[in-house]
Formats: sequence, structure tokens, C-alpha cells
Amino acid sequence: MSEPTTTPNPTPARTGADLLCETLLSEGVDLCLANPGTSEMHFVAALDRQPRMRCVLGLFEGVVTGAADGYARMADKPACTLLHTGPGLANGLANLHNARRAYTPIVNVVGDHATWHLSADAPLTADIESLAHPMSRWVGRSSAPEALGLLAQQAVHEALQPPGGVATLILPADHAWSPAQALPPVPRARARPQAPAVEADRATAAAVLAAVKQGPGTCLLLAGQALRDEGLLLAARIAQATGVHVLTQQANGRVQRGLGRLMLDRVPYVVGQALAQLSPLRCMVLLGAKAPVGFFGYPGKPSSMLPPGCAVLAAAHPGEDELQALRWLADAVGAMQAPVPTALLAQRKPLPLPQGALTADAVARSVVAQLPEQAIVCDESVSSGRDFFAMSWHAAPHDYLQITGGAIGCGLPLATGAALAAPGRKVVTLQADGSAMYTLQALWTQAREQLDVLTIIYSNRTYAILHGEYRAVGAGAPGANARRMFDFDNPALDWVKLAQGQGVEAARAETAEAFNDVLAAALQRRGPFLIEAVI
Amino acid sequence: MSEPTTTPNPTPARTGADLLCETLLSEGVDLCLANPGTSEMHFVAALDRQPRMRCVLGLFEGVVTGAADGYARMADKPACTLLHTGPGLANGLANLHNARRAYTPIVNVVGDHATWHLSADAPLTADIESLAHPMSRWVGRSSAPEALGLLAQQAVHEALQPPGGVATLILPADHAWSPAQALPPVPRARARPQAPAVEADRATAAAVLAAVKQGPGTCLLLAGQALRDEGLLLAARIAQATGVHVLTQQANGRVQRGLGRLMLDRVPYVVGQALAQLSPLRCMVLLGAKAPVGFFGYPGKPSSMLPPGCAVLAAAHPGEDELQALRWLADAVGAMQAPVPTALLAQRKPLPLPQGALTADAVARSVVAQLPEQAIVCDESVSSGRDFFAMSWHAAPHDYLQITGGAIGCGLPLATGAALAAPGRKVVTLQADGSAMYTLQALWTQAREQLDVLTIIYSNRTYAILHGEYRAVGAGAPGANARRMFDFDNPALDWVKLAQGQGVEAARAETAEAFNDVLAAALQRRGPFLIEAVI
Repeated sequence: MSEPTTTPNPTPARTGADLLCETLLSEGVDLCLANPGTSEMHFVAALDRQPRMRCVLGLFEGVVTGAADGYARMADKPACTLLHTGPGLANGLANLHNARRAYTPIVNVVGDHATWHLSADAPLTADIESLAHPMSRWVGRSSAPEALGLLAQQAVHEALQPPGGVATLILPADHAWSPAQALPPVPRARARPQAPAVEADRATAAAVLAAVKQGPGTCLLLAGQALRDEGLLLAARIAQATGVHVLTQQANGRVQRGLGRLMLDRVPYVVGQALAQLSPLRCMVLLGAKAPVGFFGYPGKPSSMLPPGCAVLAAAHPGEDELQALRWLADAVGAMQAPVPTALLAQRKPLPLPQGALTADAVARSVVAQLPEQAIVCDESVSSGRDFFAMSWHAAPHDYLQITGGAIGCGLPLATGAALAAPGRKVVTLQADGSAMYTLQALWTQAREQLDVLTIIYSNRTYAILHGEYRAVGAGAPGANARRMFDFDNPALDWVKLAQGQGVEAARAETAEAFNDVLAAALQRRGPFLIEAVI
Repeated sequence: MSEPTTTPNPTPARTGADLLCETLLSEGVDLCLANPGTSEMHFVAALDRQPRMRCVLGLFEGVVTGAADGYARMADKPACTLLHTGPGLANGLANLHNARRAYTPIVNVVGDHATWHLSADAPLTADIESLAHPMSRWVGRSSAPEALGLLAQQAVHEALQPPGGVATLILPADHAWSPAQALPPVPRARARPQAPAVEADRATAAAVLAAVKQGPGTCLLLAGQALRDEGLLLAARIAQATGVHVLTQQANGRVQRGLGRLMLDRVPYVVGQALAQLSPLRCMVLLGAKAPVGFFGYPGKPSSMLPPGCAVLAAAHPGEDELQALRWLADAVGAMQAPVPTALLAQRKPLPLPQGALTADAVARSVVAQLPEQAIVCDESVSSGRDFFAMSWHAAPHDYLQITGGAIGCGLPLATGAALAAPGRKVVTLQADGSAMYTLQALWTQAREQLDVLTIIYSNRTYAILHGEYRAVGAGAPGANARRMFDFDNPALDWVKLAQGQGVEAARAETAEAFNDVLAAALQRRGPFLIEAVI
């Protein structure tokens, strides 16, 4: 049923797709997460001629984009995607939304029809720009095959421009297949973050310094690079010297965490808790962070989580150098002369393994107790796992990646990408069952690539969060129609079969003791594995 | 972890969500396919107060929108969806794209943040309008709770305005939860199709009549209502009277088909075949159809599938009354006086059951031979099942629904919706394995609702179409990177486990004889079942 070959191509001429591919490689992009279609076949052919580009298939585009997010969070450089026209992009948008909120650099390549075929309005034709803009910081469409080198370079540059984001490059099929003799442009120097507001603006510096010297009543809100080792230690020093509070945002792309690091708490998700916790503040100092707002608006509750009259000062805006701002601040308050603030850093606390009924809390305790050194935790546990973060102070040092944009279905793909970025490190995914169903196809990619990912499914067979939210918005107790939309216990999902069906070994645990044992065994092996924790 | 209830609501005031829900019911929309989130909780509460509205949960939004497509194709009226903000809409867009190409009426309800919370740019905030426009014929955002009745009525009207389409209604959470005393507006009369061009325009009528009287060399291209019983018989009469060819588009939302009906062929998918088949034509007469174009553009091939100089005449444009145009034409050529053209109608041809190796062709033959009366066939077999359509002349009378927009992942949801629309009729899904993975969550909804759907997976463990397309675009033989993106045999998907994991019973067949037997058994039972046909 296939087309006969019209242009036998044993020694193909160099094409626009080759130029694109070579430029991506010369800019340091060497992983292509792909779910291609017909309009991308010449890009695929170019990839065939570039074995340095690693190609990883996702069986659904949400896997591709979510893995690109997880990869860049750990690799600190972008992967490229390869998506098929408007509908392929559409399937990847939800996880691009999460990437956008995490400021993750991604070069998002979307194939389109040949330029001369667009006016035919063939079935797959769609307005790609309109679909791409909401989740992209930059959208560029190829103007000519020879221009694909500069366009690809610009896409990488736009993706990496601090604080990072999604750069969407639209590739018409004829530009991919037409000859292009141009060489890749000379690689550009990587964009550096801008100087922080406290260095660029004297009045801001004075205000921030005065607020921090007030100590309690002022809170540093950390984000971006401030959540890595150096930033955490600087923040701990400043807190010890001045008595300021230190928090991080409710959601972040990546936090370094565990024993020996600052016992950092985050702004609570639940609006009532956030309002209560932040109510004593007179000033919030932002380090690459956004001032906290409610995840949703609720009847009779405010958008801002800060008390009335609380000042907000940006020591570093997103895209500015948060670390440099912290260094400046630590110096200015004399924090660098004091000894290391060990009282603020997490110490090993003997955390007993849980016993008895398997609950969300028991799962978290068992993971904290058994987490190996330098693991990567990918957290989309939603309501089941909200307590893990506080508890994980006492886990071995690890990187913590979480859902950032509220678009559920990011956990399994995120873990897939993180594992691609960090071979040799164990990836542990804490995954709510409802959210897992959105992108369960990621398990197949984990099996295909034999990635070292341990997935833990919190199997409560309900959108537990919606039961809470239904009450929260004042709607009373759920009735028959509501329960039919909140619960999926009938039939129950069998996660062992869903994993095995995709080539991932799996086991089920129904007690804390069983979970402890299967977790210990799973952490001893390499390669993908899934535990269904029935809670 | 949930918000405490701020507004105990035992006898709730009537809200904007109630007004919306009551209006949808009064306009005849009584099925809500949903995947709600927090911002939609008051709509869910309103649904709780309206037991006449049937609520069906999809565990992924692509299931919701694809099922809304399948439902309306069979019910000839829209369902409403309930999606959660921009990312929830994004996940549903691919199947809305297919619905758009099928001219399917859908009332697509998308919840958004409370109006006063949008400026906070909370994590889930996104440009919903930009996402919705490419797949919607109409997008409306609520301006006030009291206005939701008229807005909902307009959404239904826009969805049903011939030829039909997706009407997206954006519902801010505070408009859903705020009081609204207005009653639903008086139901509007359903929009009727416009008079066809052959009735509205004398010159067109003359040209069409002259072309049809030419007989061979002219082709009627049927779409829309012309593909139902009356239209097919009218076209057969015209063909018998004049000798014109009759074809349908490569893809259609719904075709009535099987024994006793016109042996209608369609424009081939493969460009070379389409060009060859249509090359003798001097005139194409469109009845609600679009002139055929290539599904993709290929190097050195044209966009149009018609030979140079072939005239194109629209007897009825999309949205005009194709049936009325056929009646006029049949009358004008004197076709109504002749006897029924039995030679053009499909007769029972003894079709032996296949034997030996299980191939795509064997699967199709077995289905044609065993298909029960008035089944609904949902076809997303992609490359494996292209021959089914021609063969299915000889099957029992059935309705045939297929992927229309090229956005793969529509088969399982489409079947889910068709089964909801037509209880008592067996739904048979012909489903390629690669495409099935996009929306496999539909199987769970089939189990939850105990829908009478038999899913047949063509399990070839490859994107077979891409192997063909890679050759078709002149890219030569696939290399290592290409094969890594085309084949998913390592690991092989186990469709029996993937079905059972979602509560759907399943079996595997590896020979034609085994397939014949399991198909016969599966057709005897009711409720969801899946056969993995290893081809």
C-alpha cells in the first residue's frame, strides 16, 4: 500500500534536514525524543546519517515532551523533540506547559506539510502557531532550507536564554527534503543569566538588605539555581546570620535535597495552610521566584498567599542570577565569616520502616528510609504524596523533580527523561494512579531503553484531590454524578498488568511490610520496575 | 490535605453552572463526557443536581473528545465535554481535530480559573482561546453567570449549524459558582442545512446537469448525509441512468454500508493510486464533499488528485443539503422512473473464512464474513486495514466510522462514544496497535460503562505506515535511527494484559483459524472484549 519510490536516493544530496540536524549537534543538542509522522521522514533520514544524535521513541507525544522536560532539568541542556504536525504538537502540549512553568529549555521541532501543500487544507493541516504559542517562549517557522542552520541555532539560544523555556521550530516537509549546502553556523556562546536586581539597582539592594536585616518577619523565597547546593548553603548562612525565614515555591523544576542540605520547606498547596503559614510575614524577598498565589481561586479566598501589606522585593527576577544575588546578600550581612550553620542542615534521623497498613504516609517513610545516594526523585504523587517533601530532609542526598504546571501526566515521562540524562543514578517516581494513566506509555520507553527507573504507583483508585477540592469550593458532599467522575475503583486498574503489558516488570504490595521488602529488592536491581502500592 | 469547607451548602443556591446544565438539557444535550478538575467542581455539583445528564468519565481527555465525536456521529446530536483548563483542553485537541474534519457537532466545555484569579498567573493558567481556535468553529467565553443560558444555547446552535462542528464554551470557575436566577432560554429550532447550490444557482444547476449527462468521465463525490441510505440509493439511481462514476472521500465521519447498499468505493489514500484512478475524469461533482487532495505533499507530486483540466462543480457545498441536491439531480436525469438499480447494490457473495497465517487481509475477511447485522465498525486500522473498506460491501448492513483528520488515537474513543449512542448495536473496532497506544485509556471507560465494544488490535508491532512513507518521500531504506523510531517490537506490547489491566477481557490469536473462532465467540457475548490479532 505504500508509495513507490520516486527518487531513489542511495547517495542522498545534503538537505535542509541535514543542516538542521548538524546545527543541533554543533549546539550541543544530541538527544532527539521523537514520535514522527510522514511529514518528518526527511528529518528522520537526516538523523539516520547522524549516529551521534541519540533517537528515543515515545509511543505518545506527551511522553516525548515530558521526557524532554525531565532530561533538561537534569542535563542542564535541551533535548530536541520531533512531533508530527498540529495534532502531534497538541498531544505534547500539556507537558510543554509543565516545562514552561519549570523554565525548562526544550527545542521543540514540529513538522508541517510542504509549504505548497498547505493551501490544499489536507486532513492534518492545522494552525500550528496558534497551538504552540501558549506553551512556547519562542516560535519560529522555517523560511527556506538554507536558513535552517541559523533558525536551529536561534531555537537553541531561545530555549537556553535564562531562565529557560520552550522554543518551537516549525519544519515544513519540503524545507527538510530540499537541498541545502550551507554549513552549520559557528556555535554561539551560551547565554548567561543577567546580573541580579540587587546588583543592578542600588535602591533595590538597599531595600532588600534592610528587609533581610529585620530577620524574622522577612522570608527569602528560593527558586532556580538557588535550589542547588551552593544556593542552599548560602541561604542557610544568611538565615543563621539574620534569622530570616527561607522557603521555596510550591513547585520547582529541580531541588537538591536530603542529608547535609538546608531543611527547606515549601509554600503549602492548600490555600488555608499557605495563608496561615505566611501570615506573620512583613516582607518577602524573591530569588528567581514568583510571589506565591493560590493554585486555584476559591470563593471568598484571595489570589495572593501573602498577608495584606506584606512587601515583595525581587533580589533576582526569573532569568537573573539568583546565586549571585545570594552571594551578595551573604556578604552584605556578614554571613560568610560565621561557621557552617549545621543546625539548619538535615541530619540523619533514625526513621523506622513503616509497619501495618500500607498508607501514603507509609510509602513515603519507606522511600525516605531506603532511598539510595544521588537518586533522582520524580514526584507526581498529587494528594497522596504531599508529605514526602517535608520528610525527605532525612533521605540520602538526591535531586527532586516535581510537576510544576499542574498538567497531570508528567511523572512517568519526567522520570524517563531524567534517566536518559543521568545514567548511573537511580530514578524513583512517586506517582498518583489517576495522573499515571495520562501518559502510561512512558513505561514502554523505559523498557525499550532499559532505563533505571523504579515507579511507585499510589493506587487509591480515585482522584482523591477532587474529593477535597469539591469540599473546598463549598459544593458540599459529592453526589452520584460527582462520584462517577471522581472514582475509578470500578473496575480497578491493575498496574502490574499495565506495566508488564509494556515490558516492565512489576509487583504489588498491600501492606507496609510487603512494600518495604519489594522496595528493597527493587532498589537492588537495575532497569525499569514498577510497584503498585495499594493504599 | 483538603481545604476546609468555607460555605456549607446543604441547600445550594442556583448557580451559573445550574443554568448552563439546565440549558444544555433543554437543548437536548444529555450526555457529559468528562475529565474534570478543581475549576470545574461547581459544574460537577450542578450535574449532581441533574440526574437526567448522564456523566461518563474518561481517564484521559483524548478519550473524552474522541468519544464525543463517536457519540455525535451516531446520535446525530452533540454530547458535551467537560475539560480542565488549558492543559486539559490540549490533551483533547487531537481528537477534536478529527471531529472538526468529520464535521461532528460537539459542545466542548472548558473550565477556567475564576476571572479575578487569572491575573495571578497561577500554574494552570494558559491561553485557552489560542489553543481552542484551531480545532473549533466557534469559541465563546462566559461574560457573566446570568448569561450562561444564552451562551450554552449558542454553543449548541453553533455545534449543530450544518455541516456541524466543535463549539468551545469557556467557563470561568466563579461564573459557575455564582448565583444565577435566569431560566434557560426557550429552545431554538434546530438549524437546517441550506439549499444546495444546484437549487440556489441556475448556472451551477445547468453545469452540473450537463456534466452528469456526460456519464463516464464525470464522477459524483459523496459526503455527509449523501452517505446514508437515501443518498446512496439516489446516487445509485443516477449512476444507472447516466453512467457517471460515484465515489466518496478518502475519509468520512459516517458511511452506511454493506449488503443491499451501493457498492461505493473511496478515493485511495496512496497518492499514486488516487492519481491513476481519477486520471480519466473530466468533471467531478461534489455533494457536500471537498475535492480530493493528497493526504501529504510528496516530492514531485501534485496537491490535487484530479487530472489537469478536470472541472470541479459543487452541487452542494459542505453545510448545504446534499440529499436535496441528489433528489434534484435524480429527478432531472429521469432516474426515479427506472427500476431499482440492483446491479449496483451489494449482493451476498459467499466469502470463505480465512485459513492459515493470520494477516491483515485475513482479519478483514473474517470480520466481513461474521459481522452481525447493524453493527457499527470503527476503523483506525491505518495501513493494516485499508482493504477492509472495499471488501465490506459484502458484510451485513452496518455503519462505518473512520479516522477523518489523521490525528491517530481516535479508534478506541470513537467506539466508546458510538456504543454510548447506540445501545443494542455491536460496535467492532479495527485498530492499529501503534495508534491504539495513544488513547488506550478508552478501554477502561468501556469496562466501566459495560459497553458492547469488540476491539480488534492489528498487532504488527511497527508503525507500518512510516516504513512506506519513508520510501514514498524518497528517503531510501530506513537506517538504525529510523528503525528505532518506526518499530516497537522490542519490547512487544502485550495487548491482552493492557486490556485486562483496565478491566476488559481479552484473548490473543496467532492463526486465521484461531482468529475466526475467537471472533465468533466474542460476537456472541455482550460487553467489552479485545482480540489481539498478531499479524
